[in-house]
Amino acid sequence: MLDAVKGRRSIRAFTDQPVSEDEVNALIDAACHAPSAGNIQPWEFIIVRSAEVKREIAAAALNQKFIEDAPVVIVVCADMARSRRGYGSRGATLYCIQDTAAATQNILLTAHAMGLGTCWVGAFREEGVKKALGIPDNVRPVAIIPVGHSTAKPVRPPRRPLSDVVHYEKF
Amino acid sequence: MLDAVKGRRSIRAFTDQPVSEDEVNALIDAACHAPSAGNIQPWEFIIVRSAEVKREIAAAALNQKFIEDAPVVIVVCADMARSRRGYGSRGATLYCIQDTAAATQNILLTAHAMGLGTCWVGAFREEGVKKALGIPDNVRPVAIIPVGHSTAKPVRPPRRPLSDVVHYEKF
Repeated sequence: MLDAVKGRRSIRAFTDQPVSEDEVNALIDAACHAPSAGNIQPWEFIIVRSAEVKREIAAAALNQKFIEDAPVVIVVCADMARSRRGYGSRGATLYCIQDTAAATQNILLTAHAMGLGTCWVGAFREEGVKKALGIPDNVRPVAIIPVGHSTAKPVRPPRRPLSDVVHYEKF
Repeated sequence: MLDAVKGRRSIRAFTDQPVSEDEVNALIDAACHAPSAGNIQPWEFIIVRSAEVKREIAAAALNQKFIEDAPVVIVVCADMARSRRGYGSRGATLYCIQDTAAATQNILLTAHAMGLGTCWVGAFREEGVKKALGIPDNVRPVAIIPVGHSTAKPVRPPRRPLSDVVHYEKF
């Protein structure tokens, strides 16, 4: 597990090798096993293979062109209404974001274990992505994940030392 | 990886068996290997073993008494100022929450792989937790994770079927 957690990299260049429907299903299955507040599961996933739709997503994502080069792109969405029904504004603004982030992390780790590369893209105009994908009100796109086979193994970016982020008993 | 992703359960009853400092360090190390927007790493972790502090945390967490029974409790915090410096309000309200949620999920999965049980507790009064732990302004407690050895293996709560959460090309 630590090997997967530490070995995962953000991949921004992909080969032409395809990603099968079974592989995508395994990633979504992993995502759906994330924990969620009250087991509400406020997630929705849009699987994009169309070159035109990928182009629209990349355009809304500040022209990060590598998104278009991935054979498949998974757009993770948070259904705010679903979380709001259970937990009010804390559900809509916090749990909903956390639950879908945990689902996203499951996708990244599982993809890595399957030999696939991914990148968690968060920089995009939400309205642009919603328009491109016909996402309804109350649902928010929260992550764009290009998935494919990496052309290279990037180095691990540095991490803050543990002594910098750990506190005992009090902050 | 799928075994860990699917085998992880929310554990709310713990034995007296201790959790070592090495085990806690391995969990924090896993957390720190989560991806984060711009590699900003807006996370801070408070390790709580004191019975009195655990009692205060449980009280702020709507009296979820099982939190007190765990040998160690990890409180995950999001440094909003750190994310705001990099990415403005999108950083402070979205990336910061997602990055710390990915770190939290790494902790849950790694703990499970190590034979430890955890529970992602999100229902708490943030001001109460901040006061109990001396957490400064601009830092937000986002998850309370009791860690210990489970007394039992709970059944997996049902999941929405894939057909319910997957969309192709458009929502």
